[in-house]
Amino acid sequence: MNMTQLENARKNIITEEMRQVASTEHLDPQQVMNLIADGRLVIPANKIHLKGNLKPIGIGRALTTKINANIGASPLDSDENYELRKLEISLKYGAHTVMDLSTGGDVDHCRLNLIHHSPAPLGTVPIYEMIIHRSVDELSYDDILKTCEKQAQQGVDFFTIHAGLLKEHIPLTRKRLAGIVSRGGSLLAHWMLNHNKQNPFYEVFNDICDIMRQYDVCFSLGDGLRPGCLADATDEAQIAELRTLGELTQRAWEKGCQVMVEGPGHVPYNQIEYNMKLQQEICKNAPFYVLGPLVTDVAPGYDHITSAIGATAAAYHGAAFLCYVTPREHLGLPTDDDVRQGVIAYRIAAHAADVALGIPGARDWDDQLSQARAELNWKKHLELAMDPDTARQMHDEKKLPDTNYCTMCGKDWCAVRITKELREKINS
Amino acid sequence: MNMTQLENARKNIITEEMRQVASTEHLDPQQVMNLIADGRLVIPANKIHLKGNLKPIGIGRALTTKINANIGASPLDSDENYELRKLEISLKYGAHTVMDLSTGGDVDHCRLNLIHHSPAPLGTVPIYEMIIHRSVDELSYDDILKTCEKQAQQGVDFFTIHAGLLKEHIPLTRKRLAGIVSRGGSLLAHWMLNHNKQNPFYEVFNDICDIMRQYDVCFSLGDGLRPGCLADATDEAQIAELRTLGELTQRAWEKGCQVMVEGPGHVPYNQIEYNMKLQQEICKNAPFYVLGPLVTDVAPGYDHITSAIGATAAAYHGAAFLCYVTPREHLGLPTDDDVRQGVIAYRIAAHAADVALGIPGARDWDDQLSQARAELNWKKHLELAMDPDTARQMHDEKKLPDTNYCTMCGKDWCAVRITKELREKINS
Repeated sequence: MNMTQLENARKNIITEEMRQVASTEHLDPQQVMNLIADGRLVIPANKIHLKGNLKPIGIGRALTTKINANIGASPLDSDENYELRKLEISLKYGAHTVMDLSTGGDVDHCRLNLIHHSPAPLGTVPIYEMIIHRSVDELSYDDILKTCEKQAQQGVDFFTIHAGLLKEHIPLTRKRLAGIVSRGGSLLAHWMLNHNKQNPFYEVFNDICDIMRQYDVCFSLGDGLRPGCLADATDEAQIAELRTLGELTQRAWEKGCQVMVEGPGHVPYNQIEYNMKLQQEICKNAPFYVLGPLVTDVAPGYDHITSAIGATAAAYHGAAFLCYVTPREHLGLPTDDDVRQGVIAYRIAAHAADVALGIPGARDWDDQLSQARAELNWKKHLELAMDPDTARQMHDEKKLPDTNYCTMCGKDWCAVRITKELREKINS
Repeated sequence: MNMTQLENARKNIITEEMRQVASTEHLDPQQVMNLIADGRLVIPANKIHLKGNLKPIGIGRALTTKINANIGASPLDSDENYELRKLEISLKYGAHTVMDLSTGGDVDHCRLNLIHHSPAPLGTVPIYEMIIHRSVDELSYDDILKTCEKQAQQGVDFFTIHAGLLKEHIPLTRKRLAGIVSRGGSLLAHWMLNHNKQNPFYEVFNDICDIMRQYDVCFSLGDGLRPGCLADATDEAQIAELRTLGELTQRAWEKGCQVMVEGPGHVPYNQIEYNMKLQQEICKNAPFYVLGPLVTDVAPGYDHITSAIGATAAAYHGAAFLCYVTPREHLGLPTDDDVRQGVIAYRIAAHAADVALGIPGARDWDDQLSQARAELNWKKHLELAMDPDTARQMHDEKKLPDTNYCTMCGKDWCAVRITKELREKINS
């Protein structure tokens, strides 16, 4: 019975993974199964990784919002142990998945090591490995399928596949300010123009589906034409590719594969809701996996913030899965501390959206922390913080004689202390 | 002709300050005058500070969004030079106004020094000075008026006046999780309960207006009942006070005073639009000056981020003026580096909202930076960054042989470089 979660759900079979997701999300297993059957929920869980240490998670708008941390070495900066350290930090601060985007070092060894150490689903962009140490122009259909198969066998849980960027979309980028900013997208555009042929991933899409179905690797349909600046957002090129992603979603579903769809990128705040609704319509509610979006281009060094703003709006309006952006985006490969900052910014975005959407139980954490804050119970307050170490360090920097207030206002001026005393009067 | 900006505008007089604001904002002076006459725009410019180095700015939703940085010493942490340093950093990174919230040290000397050094409008919360070295219960009507008059004479450009929190509102906070979290609000509630009398600022409001009118100190009607956690947002207490703020807005206008209204605080993301619209309705479009709001309570240490998310939504839906929150909020008095982080987070929020609102010219900056980025013109890219020093430092950390790519992907993998080369082909 080698079936994907989607095939099982369609046959009305509740898998162990569905039960686990239902339990984590406080849902009924039947409900989880139905959402999977409808394509609204995915459980990226490669059968190989499942035999290891994978703890399945669900991604879909009916569940809590999930966040991904991108890690991986570049040719300029490859140290496998450092990538393992980034994995550890990603998981410590609450990333639900990680993607290994390595393009340098011993990529196979690094990937296997990350899978081995990661209880979280791990994703990759297989085209990267396909063109290490050679020109993209040499890429053949066979290379594509062989690499996908190898990585599937290694246990990768989801693949970004840039099959939606068609040859006929390329001229639509002519008027763009920033052109094609996705690595996979720019490489494939290069290939198509040099060969004067259709996107090879599109051409062998059915074969890719067959491989991914076998291991239940979940699709993450890549948006090679995602806008790389506000000026290019929601343009003809982006929407044309999105329509192809809608077609590919259906085709992958027909093949029994689970599907997520990737989205922008850089989007003005007022266009985010429209982008989310459009994807839901075109891709029939397949979970939307967005990169930010950044709501302004002008703050390199702070793009975890510019994008956490967009990510909150995106999740509120329909995105199910948020790919983090670190402070070093556009400037360099993230350090371990950048990873921490990116993950925290995205946990904030995801949680804020979950509270705003009224996901049952989401606000309990806020209420518990606020209760501790109101009671001036610093121990509990700091323990409940999303990043207790950082909060504690800031609080402890000034040594105080007692904990009945903080250095923000000092004892006499502490509104929380005054209010605590007042409440007895008000309530009497 | 000792008239306020509002009184001048009502008499169809375009002041020099209106001309300056019109010029900065690329508006017609007549339009600025009309907006001021309607109460939709304020120019917080004390006549005394105007004789010094004040550069007038306008605050109103028809203009670009403005941001404020709170600085000031506490009894635990008072070093006037350090506050001057915070002023310098606030202005360097783009705060439009600063508020001196000092409650410790030589507050008069510090305030005068800050006014002297600040070309930006400076605000205060006069109740703080009124109760230094004594109990709030000793506060008399006379103390209130004398302190307001002294600070007006010193050149303060806007006062937070907590006159909207009435005695009858206090019981409405009974069911709150966090109670009254505003310093001014908690002190006044204490006074009202102990004296069993109405809010003294409400009682002498007309006299406060007379003082503020004389120097053209702008009102910032304080929200002593702002919610201090998500659970308390948009509750009966908050809305009851807001209705009183609406009444006081009208009364101050009748007295010829300029008025802004302060708002929350902690608000779930889905309630922000409603809060903005309600204020606009109740306060007849007087500029709304909001503190964040924070969209989750769970991330002390990162509240510049939790609140920049809310601030973007607030500005997009109607707030004109955003009071920053630093990473150290709830934990301690901000350091100079916290001030930088807070100001940057709020410039991002303000600018993202201005772009989303389609304020003419707002997106030019994004387009210019993105153009430089697409051209791999690192010099211009980094110069145009909101914080060029931080961006440059991150970019320069890894020494590179040339600048035709960055360490994020390295040369072979640089989508921007590949796209730059592709464009010639696409365009041919």
